[in-house]
Amino acid sequence: MNEPQRIWTAAAVIIGDEILSGRTHDKNIAQIAAWLQVQGIRLAEVRVIADDMDAIATAVNALRIKHDYLFTTGGIGPTHDDITVDAVAAALGLEVVIHPEARAMLESYYETRGGLNEGRLRMARVPAGADLIPNHYSGAPGIKIDNLYMMAGVPHITAGMLDGLTGSLEGGAPLISEVIGCWVPESEVAVLLREVEKAHEGCQIGSYPFFREGRVGANFVVRSTDPDQVRSCIDTLCEGLGESGWDFTPGGI
Amino acid sequence: MNEPQRIWTAAAVIIGDEILSGRTHDKNIAQIAAWLQVQGIRLAEVRVIADDMDAIATAVNALRIKHDYLFTTGGIGPTHDDITVDAVAAALGLEVVIHPEARAMLESYYETRGGLNEGRLRMARVPAGADLIPNHYSGAPGIKIDNLYMMAGVPHITAGMLDGLTGSLEGGAPLISEVIGCWVPESEVAVLLREVEKAHEGCQIGSYPFFREGRVGANFVVRSTDPDQVRSCIDTLCEGLGESGWDFTPGGI
Repeated sequence: MNEPQRIWTAAAVIIGDEILSGRTHDKNIAQIAAWLQVQGIRLAEVRVIADDMDAIATAVNALRIKHDYLFTTGGIGPTHDDITVDAVAAALGLEVVIHPEARAMLESYYETRGGLNEGRLRMARVPAGADLIPNHYSGAPGIKIDNLYMMAGVPHITAGMLDGLTGSLEGGAPLISEVIGCWVPESEVAVLLREVEKAHEGCQIGSYPFFREGRVGANFVVRSTDPDQVRSCIDTLCEGLGESGWDFTPGGI
Repeated sequence: MNEPQRIWTAAAVIIGDEILSGRTHDKNIAQIAAWLQVQGIRLAEVRVIADDMDAIATAVNALRIKHDYLFTTGGIGPTHDDITVDAVAAALGLEVVIHPEARAMLESYYETRGGLNEGRLRMARVPAGADLIPNHYSGAPGIKIDNLYMMAGVPHITAGMLDGLTGSLEGGAPLISEVIGCWVPESEVAVLLREVEKAHEGCQIGSYPFFREGRVGANFVVRSTDPDQVRSCIDTLCEGLGESGWDFTPGGI
């Protein structure tokens, strides 16, 4: 018997009018989710909210208590619409201060790029007591305070910050997943899926239908923290699909 | 002077473990956002949550009261992990019933596709009193109850459902936006952006930096419900960028 395992969870707050207007397609949810998986942490909830002080403070306070970790993306740049630091400080009841190390980083980065100006200096502002998250791409660091990680909105900068954090967050057993793809309408095998899931404790089977090349199919994703259970669940599922005459593709379609 | 305008808002709840695992990149936020803009409705908030009864019910009840409209995506298919109808019914304190018209639609759709089975019949289940949203792609309709619209998870099916709803939701003046792209580090023009925004009441300027072809730049998006204000704000911004010696590209880069 396995001991019950502690599950570590995280939430993310995606801050940006540009996502809510449909102008920009968010890429940070997927990359944070995938990165957290590897750290043994589950992304449990995401909120996408406007560049608005109250909306940010409300979301941050609702989620930082509920989860082990909270990530924000967006709103830590140099312009007037970058208000995340102020909103988070307000949410935590902290002052905003200039972080001396961040200021030094920015001074060095902008030394050959026109020097530090009012806008650039904004990127050294942090809630009092915060630490920095290195950013090898553009000089301006991310910000960590308590269990809250404030990342950039630009996806490749956030990618660099995540990279810098790899291995530094405590997590649990990573969720293992395996995929079987099948050219079957999922409604043909709904009963099979339900029964195979029931027979494998701690396994979840997700069914993700698609329509491609003029045909319908589905990918079946089996998830569990126990690799043996995942394997056994996949085997039973494949057997069932085979018995019903459906071809399946390990790894998904 | 313009009368103050009522602003209509919507929220969306994206239901899906597959988004939170990072396996699938969500496409519904952007398409719902863009569609709502045209209806004169602002997408104010999005939550991405797990396939979990409580999580769905909590998000639905928090958001349906706060906004004029609430959209959900995902979890209305034929398999065991499709629990949105049950969760929404629980949230609203309603029973789940078979909608006779939905049943007839499914019977007709599956007549030449192997007939109605247990899984497929699940897609005729609705919270008592709900109406249907037509789906020309795959037989199974979306569901409307009060101000709540339950859409598919598969983006092209949701696209078809949105299409069917076009013009049927009351909205206000659409938010107009215009974009100027510029090969400038946004931190060079932070003061200009802030001052131009201040001088144009009701206008918001969003600054969206990027890094492409080895150079940094930014798109500046001006938004307002008043087209004259947007025009005037864009003109002032272009003048300011020109005076500082920055080339700009109307329409964005």
